[in-house]
Amino acid sequence: MGRRRRDIPCVPAADRYTLNRMVQCFPTRFNATFAALADPTRRGVLGQLARGDASITELADKFEMTLTGMKKHVSALELAGLVTTEKIGRVRTCRIGPCRLEQELEWIARYRQVWDQRFEALDGVIDELKRQEKTHGRKKRK
Amino acid sequence: MGRRRRDIPCVPAADRYTLNRMVQCFPTRFNATFAALADPTRRGVLGQLARGDASITELADKFEMTLTGMKKHVSALELAGLVTTEKIGRVRTCRIGPCRLEQELEWIARYRQVWDQRFEALDGVIDELKRQEKTHGRKKRK
Repeated sequence: MGRRRRDIPCVPAADRYTLNRMVQCFPTRFNATFAALADPTRRGVLGQLARGDASITELADKFEMTLTGMKKHVSALELAGLVTTEKIGRVRTCRIGPCRLEQELEWIARYRQVWDQRFEALDGVIDELKRQEKTHGRKKRK
Repeated sequence: MGRRRRDIPCVPAADRYTLNRMVQCFPTRFNATFAALADPTRRGVLGQLARGDASITELADKFEMTLTGMKKHVSALELAGLVTTEKIGRVRTCRIGPCRLEQELEWIARYRQVWDQRFEALDGVIDELKRQEKTHGRKKRK
C-alpha cells in the first residue's frame, strides 16, 4: 500500500503569498546576491572590506590568487552591489557597496517562518497519528 | 593629487571577528545553500513546497521544464538540505528539508550590522570634512 502524501496541513496563505511575491519581485537581484555569497573567497573579501578598503592587488595577495582571479570575484560582488570600486591613479580600490542584503534577509526570515509553521503542522499530524494508534490499541501488538 | 584611502574608521574588532569566524565555520554549507538560492526556479520550488509536498513530475509541470531539468534543481536543493525526497512506489516526492537557513540568516544579519557601522563611520568622516571646510572658509570661494 502506498503511503499518503499531503498529510501535512499547508501554511497560512498570507505567508505563502509574501514568499511568492518576494520571489517574483527580486528575481535578478536575488540571483546576483546569492550567487555572489555562494563562494568562500567572495564572503572572505566582504569580511576583509569590512575592516577597511583595499586594492584588488592587496585582496589578491591576501587570498593568494592571481589578479585576474580576484578581478572576477570582485566583478561578481560589484554586479550584486555588494562592492563598489573606484580607480584612483593606477590603483582600483574596493569598498563595501550599497547593497545591505535587506530583501535577502527578509526573504530568508520569511522562509524560516514558513518552515516553522510547516514543521509544527507535521508535529501535529504525528501527535494525531500517535493518539489514533493508542486508541486502536495498536501498541499492544509490539 | 591622489585622494587618501582608509579615511573610514574600521568597524569594532568583535563584529569583524564574528563575521570572519562564520565565514570559516560554514564554508561548504554556505556554498551549497547560497548557490541553491541563486536560481529563481529553485526559490520558486521552495515556495511551492511550502504549500505542500509535490512529486518531481508535478514540479516539472508547474515550472514548465523537463523532468531532467527539475531533477537537477531538486538535487541542488537536496545537497543544501533545503529539500528532502522520498521514493514511494514509482513517485519521488519532494518536501522542504531540515535546513532552516539559520546560520545564513545570522551571517547576513551580522553583515548588515557591519555595513551599518561602516557607513555611519563614513557619515562621520564626511561631517568632519564639512566642518573643516567651513572653518577654513572654503565655502566663500564658491
